[in-house]
Amino acid sequence: MTGTIKKIQRKNRRREVGLMPGTLNIDKNALKPKIDVFSYNKDGVTAAREQKITGIIEKVKKQKGLTHWIQVSGIGDAQLLETLGNELCINPLVLEDIVNTYQRPKFDEYDDYVFMVSRVIYFTEEGELMNEQFSAIIKDNLLITFQETHVNCFDAVEARLEAGKGLIRTAGPAYMAYALTDTILDIYFIVLAQIGDSLDELEDRLYKCPDKSVMVDAQQLKRSLITVRRAAWPERDKINDILRSDSVQITKDVKMYLRDAYDHCVQIMDLIENDKEITSSIIDLYLSMVSNRMNEIMKVLTIISAIFIPLTFVAGIYGMNFAKVDPVTNKVMPDNMPELYAYHGYYWVMAAMFVIAVIQIIIFWRKGWFSKL
Amino acid sequence: MTGTIKKIQRKNRRREVGLMPGTLNIDKNALKPKIDVFSYNKDGVTAAREQKITGIIEKVKKQKGLTHWIQVSGIGDAQLLETLGNELCINPLVLEDIVNTYQRPKFDEYDDYVFMVSRVIYFTEEGELMNEQFSAIIKDNLLITFQETHVNCFDAVEARLEAGKGLIRTAGPAYMAYALTDTILDIYFIVLAQIGDSLDELEDRLYKCPDKSVMVDAQQLKRSLITVRRAAWPERDKINDILRSDSVQITKDVKMYLRDAYDHCVQIMDLIENDKEITSSIIDLYLSMVSNRMNEIMKVLTIISAIFIPLTFVAGIYGMNFAKVDPVTNKVMPDNMPELYAYHGYYWVMAAMFVIAVIQIIIFWRKGWFSKL
Amino acid sequence: MTGTIKKIQRKNRRREVGLMPGTLNIDKNALKPKIDVFSYNKDGVTAAREQKITGIIEKVKKQKGLTHWIQVSGIGDAQLLETLGNELCINPLVLEDIVNTYQRPKFDEYDDYVFMVSRVIYFTEEGELMNEQFSAIIKDNLLITFQETHVNCFDAVEARLEAGKGLIRTAGPAYMAYALTDTILDIYFIVLAQIGDSLDELEDRLYKCPDKSVMVDAQQLKRSLITVRRAAWPERDKINDILRSDSVQITKDVKMYLRDAYDHCVQIMDLIENDKEITSSIIDLYLSMVSNRMNEIMKVLTIISAIFIPLTFVAGIYGMNFAKVDPVTNKVMPDNMPELYAYHGYYWVMAAMFVIAVIQIIIFWRKGWFSKL
Amino acid sequence: MTGTIKKIQRKNRRREVGLMPGTLNIDKNALKPKIDVFSYNKDGVTAAREQKITGIIEKVKKQKGLTHWIQVSGIGDAQLLETLGNELCINPLVLEDIVNTYQRPKFDEYDDYVFMVSRVIYFTEEGELMNEQFSAIIKDNLLITFQETHVNCFDAVEARLEAGKGLIRTAGPAYMAYALTDTILDIYFIVLAQIGDSLDELEDRLYKCPDKSVMVDAQQLKRSLITVRRAAWPERDKINDILRSDSVQITKDVKMYLRDAYDHCVQIMDLIENDKEITSSIIDLYLSMVSNRMNEIMKVLTIISAIFIPLTFVAGIYGMNFAKVDPVTNKVMPDNMPELYAYHGYYWVMAAMFVIAVIQIIIFWRKGWFSKL
Amino acid sequence: MTGTIKKIQRKNRRREVGLMPGTLNIDKNALKPKIDVFSYNKDGVTAAREQKITGIIEKVKKQKGLTHWIQVSGIGDAQLLETLGNELCINPLVLEDIVNTYQRPKFDEYDDYVFMVSRVIYFTEEGELMNEQFSAIIKDNLLITFQETHVNCFDAVEARLEAGKGLIRTAGPAYMAYALTDTILDIYFIVLAQIGDSLDELEDRLYKCPDKSVMVDAQQLKRSLITVRRAAWPERDKINDILRSDSVQITKDVKMYLRDAYDHCVQIMDLIENDKEITSSIIDLYLSMVSNRMNEIMKVLTIISAIFIPLTFVAGIYGMNFAKVDPVTNKVMPDNMPELYAYHGYYWVMAAMFVIAVIQIIIFWRKGWFSKL
Repeated sequence: MTGTIKKIQRKNRRREVGLMPGTLNIDKNALKPKIDVFSYNKDGVTAAREQKITGIIEKVKKQKGLTHWIQVSGIGDAQLLETLGNELCINPLVLEDIVNTYQRPKFDEYDDYVFMVSRVIYFTEEGELMNEQFSAIIKDNLLITFQETHVNCFDAVEARLEAGKGLIRTAGPAYMAYALTDTILDIYFIVLAQIGDSLDELEDRLYKCPDKSVMVDAQQLKRSLITVRRAAWPERDKINDILRSDSVQITKDVKMYLRDAYDHCVQIMDLIENDKEITSSIIDLYLSMVSNRMNEIMKVLTIISAIFIPLTFVAGIYGMNFAKVDPVTNKVMPDNMPELYAYHGYYWVMAAMFVIAVIQIIIFWRKGWFSKL
Repeated sequence: MTGTIKKIQRKNRRREVGLMPGTLNIDKNALKPKIDVFSYNKDGVTAAREQKITGIIEKVKKQKGLTHWIQVSGIGDAQLLETLGNELCINPLVLEDIVNTYQRPKFDEYDDYVFMVSRVIYFTEEGELMNEQFSAIIKDNLLITFQETHVNCFDAVEARLEAGKGLIRTAGPAYMAYALTDTILDIYFIVLAQIGDSLDELEDRLYKCPDKSVMVDAQQLKRSLITVRRAAWPERDKINDILRSDSVQITKDVKMYLRDAYDHCVQIMDLIENDKEITSSIIDLYLSMVSNRMNEIMKVLTIISAIFIPLTFVAGIYGMNFAKVDPVTNKVMPDNMPELYAYHGYYWVMAAMFVIAVIQIIIFWRKGWFSKL
Repeated sequence: MTGTIKKIQRKNRRREVGLMPGTLNIDKNALKPKIDVFSYNKDGVTAAREQKITGIIEKVKKQKGLTHWIQVSGIGDAQLLETLGNELCINPLVLEDIVNTYQRPKFDEYDDYVFMVSRVIYFTEEGELMNEQFSAIIKDNLLITFQETHVNCFDAVEARLEAGKGLIRTAGPAYMAYALTDTILDIYFIVLAQIGDSLDELEDRLYKCPDKSVMVDAQQLKRSLITVRRAAWPERDKINDILRSDSVQITKDVKMYLRDAYDHCVQIMDLIENDKEITSSIIDLYLSMVSNRMNEIMKVLTIISAIFIPLTFVAGIYGMNFAKVDPVTNKVMPDNMPELYAYHGYYWVMAAMFVIAVIQIIIFWRKGWFSKL
Repeated sequence: MTGTIKKIQRKNRRREVGLMPGTLNIDKNALKPKIDVFSYNKDGVTAAREQKITGIIEKVKKQKGLTHWIQVSGIGDAQLLETLGNELCINPLVLEDIVNTYQRPKFDEYDDYVFMVSRVIYFTEEGELMNEQFSAIIKDNLLITFQETHVNCFDAVEARLEAGKGLIRTAGPAYMAYALTDTILDIYFIVLAQIGDSLDELEDRLYKCPDKSVMVDAQQLKRSLITVRRAAWPERDKINDILRSDSVQITKDVKMYLRDAYDHCVQIMDLIENDKEITSSIIDLYLSMVSNRMNEIMKVLTIISAIFIPLTFVAGIYGMNFAKVDPVTNKVMPDNMPELYAYHGYYWVMAAMFVIAVIQIIIFWRKGWFSKL
Repeated sequence: MTGTIKKIQRKNRRREVGLMPGTLNIDKNALKPKIDVFSYNKDGVTAAREQKITGIIEKVKKQKGLTHWIQVSGIGDAQLLETLGNELCINPLVLEDIVNTYQRPKFDEYDDYVFMVSRVIYFTEEGELMNEQFSAIIKDNLLITFQETHVNCFDAVEARLEAGKGLIRTAGPAYMAYALTDTILDIYFIVLAQIGDSLDELEDRLYKCPDKSVMVDAQQLKRSLITVRRAAWPERDKINDILRSDSVQITKDVKMYLRDAYDHCVQIMDLIENDKEITSSIIDLYLSMVSNRMNEIMKVLTIISAIFIPLTFVAGIYGMNFAKVDPVTNKVMPDNMPELYAYHGYYWVMAAMFVIAVIQIIIFWRKGWFSKL
């Protein structure tokens, strides 16, 4: 993305009225799911792409010594979710939240599993700001994640899983969920760096060629920032909720790392507020420049009009045809416009005009109109 | 509703001074009530439209194994409310709140019943934003609801009741109250989708033909959003109050579903804030465009005036009638306006004018006045 | 009151420095008190107007089975207050608060009595917004109220006392205090209805004839709303304080009714916020209209100037007196202004001017300057 | 002080970096201290002006039955403070706070003494807003107060001490500290009354002769109000801290009076907010008036230009010199400008001009340009 | 730094996505560390500059009776940090926070050490506002501090350490950390004094020569203030966190001094808010001045145009060539423009023009256009 942000993805906000809570009302544009299963312990990792969900859960439940991460990309399959819900005893309200992709980040505790939602914000190559939902269920040794599209944001985490460095293979599914959340927060930093670049570029344009696109782009940036803030703010609350949770899924180790993620979240809020202030400052400067431009235009108009309108009037006077001799009666008018017949009258008048112009210029100069306001 | 919001219903805010609390002071425009009684248990539903309230309560009290939902549409009958109040021992303050239709959403607990108020916000087909009151009393196995008009918003709930899917027939009157509240929240989403459409359409108009109706419509949308927010904000508090209530009417099952409704409420607040930001952004852009338009007009005026006023002055000079020969004395003036009698004087002057105009155009072009600001 | 609010009463805010706390520093404009004593129990009411306070308290203390309401209208008599203070053992700070009529609504508990302050806001017939203080002391079976003027706002309560309906004769002095407070809140609703009417009328004027009085009146309305809010906001806190009080004066019954009054207070806050938003919206629309009006004026000026200034220049050119024959030498200038002597030259020039004007009109029409901005 | 506020005193905000905490870094402009010692019990008062602090403390400590108030005016003597600190075992940080005169109002408890800071805000006769620091230490039967200048704000308290009315001689040093604090709050009321007068006067000017000094003065008033608020806000917190303190110095009696002072503080905040709203309203009205004035000027310009520019063009046409007879060839041009030679051509043209002008005036009149916007 | 603030340092906000938490990802511009070790007890100080970290910790651990302050300036050496981390058992997340130099001020407690971050804000001599990170670890008798650059802000603290006055040599590493934090706060005061000077200078320029740089500089100052506030706000929270901490590192003595630092922090916030208000006030005044300037320009234009355009029209009328005698037919036109041939016609017309001009001047004078708006 270079230059300005072009578009902000709009979430479909329509809902059917009075549907039974827990109804899986899948958007017709939702993508068919791809299923990746990662099974690992401190000795190694096996990764597999599965076609169907049936059987996976049962197989996974048997492998007690392993941690399993089932990554579902695309949520356009009610069947899959229902199967999952039945085999793992997930509340239908949770399943409904997974398919209704306009949830705020949140953390819900249930009897033997926890459910969390994050929002993934990123720019496409065309400069559109995407706002996707990422949900995760943690139950026993199992982490199931759902994302809306097939875009893979978690390459780096998979690589760390392969490499097996740090706690990633040994600290259970909650640590994996933390690793994914932290990666999502890293993406926020990238989005904010891109918005920061756009702000820099906008500020350059403000000083170099402030045309009206500055205002339009500043408003667009402001809305992007609001979109990011709307996602980041409840994300912070969510992490705080996890930190205060007593759930056995969330171990003390994971909490220490989450406190780090919480700090990142606060830094994100800070950057957003900072960028919002800069955007406001750009808008204020732009409006002040428009106002100054108007002033400058008015000054040019006023100076030229004020100088030449009186002079034109003087010229107009000596363009009047008051006659010295009546062409009919041949009678001489004693004094009509004697200046016209005066010796060097023309030069005297020209000199008078010059003096008037010079006086006006001096007046305007002393008013400071020739300097910039 | 297409295009813009036309009107926002105004609640009559007049009250008589010093009335005894609990006085049923019914608005003279209030509709006569229609009474629908739904009696159901897990085996089936019976629905009946009753003419009078007398006897219903007594009949209902006897049918212990059933849950009853008495739906009162229209509140223009003090007699009915007093009968209800006496037979069920309802506090007169509650009855007063039912008929004074400008209550904020709230939840009040009494010894053996609970009372709640919601606001139903919707657009009529003429584009008027209606803001009606919905009240509910839950006592034992009985739910009594009151709404201001005969408009039926709850078709879908009645259909679910008929179909008997989910918990609706088995989870008691509080679940039914939840189902109705959730339906009201669904209607909020529809209203916000309509307002969102109006915002989209307004934004299109802003870029295509920004006339002054943009400002008027943006202000109208802003007020609609404020009206919705004023209803949604205490609704959230109300649901929170119910969640923290110890009342036996509110079972643990219902609370789980209410937590879902609470999330919906928060999403509604989110959408409202988002739309308010977009409205502000549209207003700011519009004002900036008006300002730019003014600038552009001023530039045209200034360029034309600045070029032609000096030229007209030059033409005025050579329109002066300084005489070379005095018609009376026939004396020749030595040098009066020799240019007029110079060889090719006219062409020299025309060329000078052309040069002046070209210089000015170059100056203005270098000031960037020929590009758009 | 029709049309606009004319004036907002200003409270005298001067204080003497370093006075002993509890000094009764009575404003010299304060009215002489009128004293009405209502003594009642469930069997009946006796009302009497007394000239002097001396003896009343003693008499009242003896009548144990009765509740007494002593209504003091006008506070311009330090003697009376001191007598009261001595006979009832009231803290001098309380007496000072009664005479310093710029207190915020508040509720203070003392050992064996409670003290509360409300503000009565109303419009006089001349459209002045009055802001008076109402204070009340509850001690044993005695309620003493103080108001600044002789205006009687409590007719309706006295009528209810006469009629004896409801709890008014049986629920003690705290219920009477509640009834008076609720009446004061009812008057707030009336004031807000009047302000609402003024807003409607102002909005009509905004669309019909937006002159600069719209701005002045909108600012006046805004200040009225702020005055009302400044009184209503601590009133809400005060009622909340009473609700949480453990004082024996405030019985459980009275608290139930006060909860209702609390709801009214919140509704008043809601109406005030709503009206403030409408006022802001009117001001924004007015400013936008002024800006549009300016634009329209500039467009008229620019169109006329841009069309006629170049044409006048052309006319000026052919008004120049370049001579074809030198009057002195009689020498013929070969080519000076041949257009003047061309066949149908005049018509060609007129046609050229017409074409220039038409081209400019087309340009301006395509810029959309003939439509309204 | 009449008219406008002229200046706001600026506190020197420079500090040396890395100084040892507790260093007494006295400003070189600080005044030399004057020491007044008041010793009193319920039987009488003795007042004395001392030259040196040495010995006073020791003398005072011996007189157990008396309360002592040592008033130090002027803080330009490090020696004095160090002596005090040593003899009374005061923490150096407290002494540092006394000499660094930009402290916020605060209340600090130490083991056997308490320390409090207030700010004294007043206008000098030249209209400068002074912002001085007042600090007090209460230890046993001793109150030591420090103020920056020799201006005596506490005449009234000294008079009450002389007169011996109320609790002032009997309630100990904390009551004296309360009396001084309450006097400082009384001075806030006076400052706000003066600002209120300036606002009234400014509002008059706004309607009578709104020149640009209105804006400058409104901004100056706004800053004065902010200065006062900055002092009053923490003062309220300070009093609240004292009320919640368990210190033996602060007796129950004093707390009752402090609650009264707290109310005064809240009233001060109220007045400040009120005055800020009025200031904003004046600024908004002024800006709207400037905008209207511009509109009016533009209308005059447009009306005159729009009427006379086309007429001048018409006059210009008939000032063109298209020849009817070629002076060289004596050939007659058939139709060049026949109007000039038409019968009564001049009058027809004048009539046409008149009609054009009348039509334009009617158009502008119907646009409402002759009424005020 | 004289005059205006030129630039605000921008922190690099890019992060790599999905890195393992605790990875030491050192910025390539980071400076190589310099290591100064101060070892002291109440008897004396030894200071040494070390080349390598290896061995220092071990040596230091052995010297039990001494307090050690290891000052690391420059953080461009991952090796050093890893060594430190290993020898002192510091959590990798802490090390990561030390190298990622965009942390907010914070205080984290670990089992046997505490970690704190501050931000050092200062102006370079070129007027750039620097925003550097200062981190500190306290463990047992050891304080390790990290700063980004080799700029030494702590000369004064080192001097106090040399001099050995106060508690600095005896109160342990936490007191040293306090002394450094307080020094950082002193630098905030200096930055705010510099910003205050810039504001004074800007205000002077506002009244003397208000050109458009005023707006640009005011916006720059506003952003500087926001930058400072963004650092100072969490600093206050940090100090509060330390005050409420139970860590054994933070002794009661240190807490008393930290309460003093907390007061300084609140004063800093106060100064920032004050300066922000002044900046806003300057911006408002500037915009109002631009508007007034425009008004003044428009008035000059309107007065000159309104006076001379009608006069020029009159002159234009008498410049028309309506003929008295037809040159072809020699027929006399009876009445064409008799004024031209009237006795003293020229003087009458000049007098009429003069009267028109005077009337207009009187009208404008009575509108008050010759006074300043």
